[in-house]
Amino acid sequence: MSEVALQGADALLMVGDSERDSDLFWATRFRAPDPFVYLRTAEKSWVMVKDLELDRAREQVQGAEVISHSEYERRLGERPSLVGVLVEILRKRNIQHVLVAENFPIGTADALRQANLVLTVAQAPLFPARAFKDDREIEAIAGAQVAAEAGMSAAVEVLRRATIDGAQLLLEGVPLSSEQVRRHIHHALLEHDCVAHHTIVAGGEQAIDPHQAGHGPLPANKPIIIDIFPQHTPSGYYGDITRTFVRGTISDSVQHLYDTVLAAQLRALGQIRAGVDGQTAHDAVVSHFTEAGYETGEKDGRMQGFFHGTGHGVGLDIHEGPSLSRRSSKLETGHIVTVEPGLYYAGTGGVRIEDLVVVEDESYRNLTSFPKDLSL
Amino acid sequence: MSEVALQGADALLMVGDSERDSDLFWATRFRAPDPFVYLRTAEKSWVMVKDLELDRAREQVQGAEVISHSEYERRLGERPSLVGVLVEILRKRNIQHVLVAENFPIGTADALRQANLVLTVAQAPLFPARAFKDDREIEAIAGAQVAAEAGMSAAVEVLRRATIDGAQLLLEGVPLSSEQVRRHIHHALLEHDCVAHHTIVAGGEQAIDPHQAGHGPLPANKPIIIDIFPQHTPSGYYGDITRTFVRGTISDSVQHLYDTVLAAQLRALGQIRAGVDGQTAHDAVVSHFTEAGYETGEKDGRMQGFFHGTGHGVGLDIHEGPSLSRRSSKLETGHIVTVEPGLYYAGTGGVRIEDLVVVEDESYRNLTSFPKDLSL
Repeated sequence: MSEVALQGADALLMVGDSERDSDLFWATRFRAPDPFVYLRTAEKSWVMVKDLELDRAREQVQGAEVISHSEYERRLGERPSLVGVLVEILRKRNIQHVLVAENFPIGTADALRQANLVLTVAQAPLFPARAFKDDREIEAIAGAQVAAEAGMSAAVEVLRRATIDGAQLLLEGVPLSSEQVRRHIHHALLEHDCVAHHTIVAGGEQAIDPHQAGHGPLPANKPIIIDIFPQHTPSGYYGDITRTFVRGTISDSVQHLYDTVLAAQLRALGQIRAGVDGQTAHDAVVSHFTEAGYETGEKDGRMQGFFHGTGHGVGLDIHEGPSLSRRSSKLETGHIVTVEPGLYYAGTGGVRIEDLVVVEDESYRNLTSFPKDLSL
Repeated sequence: MSEVALQGADALLMVGDSERDSDLFWATRFRAPDPFVYLRTAEKSWVMVKDLELDRAREQVQGAEVISHSEYERRLGERPSLVGVLVEILRKRNIQHVLVAENFPIGTADALRQANLVLTVAQAPLFPARAFKDDREIEAIAGAQVAAEAGMSAAVEVLRRATIDGAQLLLEGVPLSSEQVRRHIHHALLEHDCVAHHTIVAGGEQAIDPHQAGHGPLPANKPIIIDIFPQHTPSGYYGDITRTFVRGTISDSVQHLYDTVLAAQLRALGQIRAGVDGQTAHDAVVSHFTEAGYETGEKDGRMQGFFHGTGHGVGLDIHEGPSLSRRSSKLETGHIVTVEPGLYYAGTGGVRIEDLVVVEDESYRNLTSFPKDLSL
């Protein structure tokens, strides 16, 4: 892994479980459900795990020496606290000043300060290098995106099989639900060793809320948003795709909404290259929608229009840096970001179209090849 | 939700995303992938979310008023920091002293202290009431356990279909792998709206490491440990079950190992009731293994014997309180815990048997009904 600026501290100290803390997984390549300790000076790194994890850590940890946390505990006698062990680990290495991440737990931090250690809090992101994906990481994310597209195909297949009965979709005579379509998607993802938790299959009025997962019967003749962001279990990397479909008759207002979102996405994609600010791509979307006459704001007690960012980085976290949003965030070669404008209006429905792209020197490489057809 | 002791503070303050922070989900019943703010005085609670989450929060949040974080941001002008918004939120309510959880991020904590707020760090667990499951929660966990058993049935079905070719298991003529069995399990879980990430299907020497997920061809005539801990996506609650199987010939040493673990599990289960210390159940397992002549310790460079806890609480986290381990931890009516002794020896293999039980006044109710047959 690449350098971390110690900012005058003797060492970087992390304590956490790497299933939730992607920085810790990225730094160690060791995935553990229980908290462990990572310590890194300018010269050397250590991973300290309990007996239960010792063998697996020795096998998996990259770039750090694995030592037994339990051995320290035994040396300190009857069930010492985590902080007691940390103090001993630091004392033994003459470390008095540690760098910790912004999300380092205050309980542990306060106890270390009481033990006369100096803590410096690093600004996020702790590892700016995480935003730059190497070939192996791009391959893993591309693989997760292939899985996401297989999930999208499974969704399309079941939506096409559905028949139209007035305002409803029926599958084998009964209303087709968001839950059923989601299940089809998840089975397809499993065949690619991917897992997804909150896949969105939201139609009609439900789709007005971009984070609404969707539930119950799906409508005919109304846009259905499908947003799939699977994690590839062996590697930990995510993919991310969104498409919007109508099964049935497409009204003029829905078609116009769709065309506008697609044009905005192409305009944003046209901005993507190294050196450009993500904010520029976001502003392009905002301008496009404004020029097309689509307004954003609270209306009838709910947000309508375009009220989320245009994109975000994807890697070991589904949301990570850089961003394509109101905040400034420079794009560089090797970043992987989503480009996903959307418009949401009560009555008409919601439309979002999302691709996942690798930023390159002069342009971008789209990891997404799924067609963008509104009609099924 | 039940009371939280404010310990002299004016309010409890939480900032996080409730997909990772189960305390925050438990307190609000609102699941969000992006960080939001929860504030609670003795009289009232607030959830503060950005525009994107506003509608969904108003629909899902329980026991708190939902207000717009973005509205505060807009009032404070150009892109204020999270801490700037927090200071304003607290100032407006005359809150000077806040209680925060042990895992509250140090970056935010230091900034709040610099703004002259007083922080008191609560000891973990922040919400002791989370360990006590109500009927609705017990039902959700029992449902996840039904799914876990369906996964186990799927595993057994495919292991039984396998043929034995010397030391190997073959399915339709090719070696049967951990990955294939895991996939069968996960498809079965999906049919119950459950997702699992790190299902263990580990045979032979791989099973000596209790957290090894397992990979590659599965052995005949050796124990295969299958540990399934699915999360029910709609509710967020987990189930947890482990069984050990041999497909093929069972050696005397493996049979004896299995019988000893099963006897130890029954002995531990016999201890479970309200008022008993989880440590007592763990000690019963340790004594049973020692009496049976099974030693624990590092041997030939790896841990062997029994070197993990006997059990842990299960709920919105797969590992939560109370524990059945070396640490004292009192069991109470309504707690839900695993009981999962195991023995692991290089050469012989690993055996673990795990049930999930509800602690009751005089005994326990087993949520697990899957048979405990070593032979397939």
